Amino acid sequence: MPDPVRSAAVHADAAVPDGLLDAFWRYEDALMADDVPTLDALFAEGPWTLRGDAGGLLVGHDAIAAFRRGRGGAPQRQVVAVHVRVLDATTAAVVAVVEPRTGGRGQQTQVWRLGPAGWQVLVAHVAAPAPAVDGRVWREVGTPLVAGAGSGPLAGRRVAVKDLFAVAGRPIGAGVPAYLAAARTEPATAPAVQVLLDAGADLTGIARTDEFAYSIAGANPHYGTPPNARVPGGLPGGSSNGPASAVALGQADVGLGTDTGGSIRVPASYQGLWGLRTTHGRVPRDGLLPLAPRFDTVGWLTRDREVLAACSRVSAIGAPAVAAPERFAIAPRALEALEAPVREAFLRWTRSLEVEETDLGDLVAAQEAFRVVQAAEAWASYGAWLTAHPGAVSGAVADRFLAASRIDAAEAARARADLEAHRARLERAVDGVILLLPAAASVAPQTTADPTTVDRVRTATLRLTCVAGIIGAPSLAAPLLEIGGAPLGVALVGPRDSDDALVHRAAAFPAA
Amino acid sequence: MPDPVRSAAVHADAAVPDGLLDAFWRYEDALMADDVPTLDALFAEGPWTLRGDAGGLLVGHDAIAAFRRGRGGAPQRQVVAVHVRVLDATTAAVVAVVEPRTGGRGQQTQVWRLGPAGWQVLVAHVAAPAPAVDGRVWREVGTPLVAGAGSGPLAGRRVAVKDLFAVAGRPIGAGVPAYLAAARTEPATAPAVQVLLDAGADLTGIARTDEFAYSIAGANPHYGTPPNARVPGGLPGGSSNGPASAVALGQADVGLGTDTGGSIRVPASYQGLWGLRTTHGRVPRDGLLPLAPRFDTVGWLTRDREVLAACSRVSAIGAPAVAAPERFAIAPRALEALEAPVREAFLRWTRSLEVEETDLGDLVAAQEAFRVVQAAEAWASYGAWLTAHPGAVSGAVADRFLAASRIDAAEAARARADLEAHRARLERAVDGVILLLPAAASVAPQTTADPTTVDRVRTATLRLTCVAGIIGAPSLAAPLLEIGGAPLGVALVGPRDSDDALVHRAAAFPAA
Repeated sequence: MPDPVRSAAVHADAAVPDGLLDAFWRYEDALMADDVPTLDALFAEGPWTLRGDAGGLLVGHDAIAAFRRGRGGAPQRQVVAVHVRVLDATTAAVVAVVEPRTGGRGQQTQVWRLGPAGWQVLVAHVAAPAPAVDGRVWREVGTPLVAGAGSGPLAGRRVAVKDLFAVAGRPIGAGVPAYLAAARTEPATAPAVQVLLDAGADLTGIARTDEFAYSIAGANPHYGTPPNARVPGGLPGGSSNGPASAVALGQADVGLGTDTGGSIRVPASYQGLWGLRTTHGRVPRDGLLPLAPRFDTVGWLTRDREVLAACSRVSAIGAPAVAAPERFAIAPRALEALEAPVREAFLRWTRSLEVEETDLGDLVAAQEAFRVVQAAEAWASYGAWLTAHPGAVSGAVADRFLAASRIDAAEAARARADLEAHRARLERAVDGVILLLPAAASVAPQTTADPTTVDRVRTATLRLTCVAGIIGAPSLAAPLLEIGGAPLGVALVGPRDSDDALVHRAAAFPAA
Repeated sequence: MPDPVRSAAVHADAAVPDGLLDAFWRYEDALMADDVPTLDALFAEGPWTLRGDAGGLLVGHDAIAAFRRGRGGAPQRQVVAVHVRVLDATTAAVVAVVEPRTGGRGQQTQVWRLGPAGWQVLVAHVAAPAPAVDGRVWREVGTPLVAGAGSGPLAGRRVAVKDLFAVAGRPIGAGVPAYLAAARTEPATAPAVQVLLDAGADLTGIARTDEFAYSIAGANPHYGTPPNARVPGGLPGGSSNGPASAVALGQADVGLGTDTGGSIRVPASYQGLWGLRTTHGRVPRDGLLPLAPRFDTVGWLTRDREVLAACSRVSAIGAPAVAAPERFAIAPRALEALEAPVREAFLRWTRSLEVEETDLGDLVAAQEAFRVVQAAEAWASYGAWLTAHPGAVSGAVADRFLAASRIDAAEAARARADLEAHRARLERAVDGVILLLPAAASVAPQTTADPTTVDRVRTATLRLTCVAGIIGAPSLAAPLLEIGGAPLGVALVGPRDSDDALVHRAAAFPAA
């Protein structure tokens, strides 16, 4: 009986060198068995070995091996045809057409070489058939889901809306399956969505969010973590993770999201996008599920600065347009706690500008007041529901809600008073300047990073992002830095209602 | 000023051989300019050159050149990184990370060799970032769009429903944008959809159809022609083209469609799927837009015969289950008009069975009666709407509706009388046997085929498929044949209500 796995027709342009096909099939067997050591051994050692798929290009044996260890096995598939292009006695390209058990066809292209360690892959390119929709990124997608006005400043732009905004005729899911299952059909579309439709954009779909938007990591245990389009294996950043990944992947042009503690700016920074947290209260929040209304704002993620500018312009109906200060300031003390590569990349970039220095005071204390007020409000938003639905949220989000449930009225009142003091001091510190900060304290961590690392990164980032949140100021994340090939944003914090002006000012900025 | 196109960082593991990068960038320039002669010249001549992308693997310089001529240019993109793996002085792998203008990242892997014609590509693998949803295949998709009962014989199966069936809360589009634009929101889900949900399946999305389902080609000028998952560049077959491609691409497990003249069986044949046209009237057609009610039936497309069997079982509530005859018959006279490779492949396959011969009479005349009755009914279905919406449909579909508009009552009445005579004769001819036919008169034509060729293929196929339509009999398309690597189905025609039995009988069939 023929081995079903090895029954594929082999087409070769010349005599196939000894051992090549055996190595090819050993690789296939190991892949199906998730035999990581064998897979690692069949890829050439060293920094030049390449492996690419829809998640990005991995460079070097170590990066590829780390990917395999974190993958948890490849989808089962059948090789249906093998094409061998013999390059010389010790080198060949092998192209396999593969059929996953779940249907469709994919292609695997490999360059093999015979060396002291036997036949090994130098270069691999793997393409799996696309799903109908990437459920890590989207809940629902149409062509479009809701058509816009057709003309206007956003004509032809495709919007991914975070699954916190009402879309007429559909429920809101908030990243939590149990919440979605019981959600009512929304009778009307949220104004923040409608204004984009009226400006000519189409609504492509409803995109994912971290559970109840109470995270900046971008992970979601229920639907899978959206990919970071710029950092293979990287966290996408959240909580506007679905809109951010959709835009970075080119599946949408505008990600409509929210930013309470950094939920627009962090995914923008992690994925090399423009992102704007708007002035608190500037864009209507009707039809938007709240997390912590004291800080909740609407915002957008885009690949293109001009598109972001248009979103900002059309969304602030009736709100004033305040000019941005001419002067820039950095806050050296706030940068001290940052890891050296981030601090250095940021400071190197600021040297091309004329910048003053300012002092933001005790950001650790400010962040703590922010945390407590946010938590108290988050519990006010979802405590009753969560109590009725134990186990509905998970991991770090569940931990935060649990901590929030223990904040009593006195603690919350103290934090609110502290917050007002911090707000007053921060407003003075940034008076008359545009404050410049890194948009996040690090580039995107890997999805395989341990919870402690993710929490440490989160705390360091929120210490920066909470400044705008406390003031209620607009903050623009601009994709201007890169560390080791991974993007990092620069954040601009301006006076209230200087949103449009901030986006305009960034037009002249140099990229690192 | 650096050339923006050529500003990408180049990473090489050794000195890059002279001329290689120049050839690489010439290729890139030619691609962006759609300079087909230069692209052709930069790919090695001969039958061993390979080029693969999401549309499939093209083998040989000629197939690749034909693809380029029909493509109409590649999407504009920017190369952001180039990795060169030098294999020897005349051979190298070049992996480029590319960024389409519309966002996201892709990868292009090439094996280059220096020969008498200079540096040329031997092997290329191109991966573009996936869209949010393939609008050629789907109108709307969810995760799922509508959740099913969760348990039952179809638990875990994903359904693509043709855009002719009502889904509560959504309009029906029928493959015609002007129709969709004015369509009402459906108050209830069609029973043929609901029964699958009740059996545990989830509704993944609403998939495309040829305009008003009045075609078997599978092309759609408004939304783009869905890809044939098995034949690169091939027509998908229609009119259930969206569900068929969705299933063949692995984006769904069940395609729920309709078959009036062959709209399940033809796409099944073209894409190597199982397809069942059900007994006329067996599965409820409520909530389904009609084309020609005298012939319209519900049916399914699947990759897996067992899944098809389950669809058939759960959908015919209360209908009788008739046994299938033991004997098989072929109709030699009906095969005479077929192209030799199709006839021979089919006859070769039937030799493994015991088959009798039967005579279906004058199929040309039967087909003509079918055509006229179908056209008269199609005009009754859409004539008023089409008259009010000039230009809403196009090409061959518009031509057919125009011809249909000219059929007067007397001609329609004559055709109905003829049809009854043909029905009586055909019923006698297949009495007591399962009739075996090719499911289509050819494998999938290329999308670039001229209209005359498509029309000729259509006429030859409908001559076979109209037999079941005239009798109202069930017809199963089984993916058993292959011609030059392209799939071709075998059709079984059984007695009315032998649907389940036909699917069961095919379990024992040999694949060619």
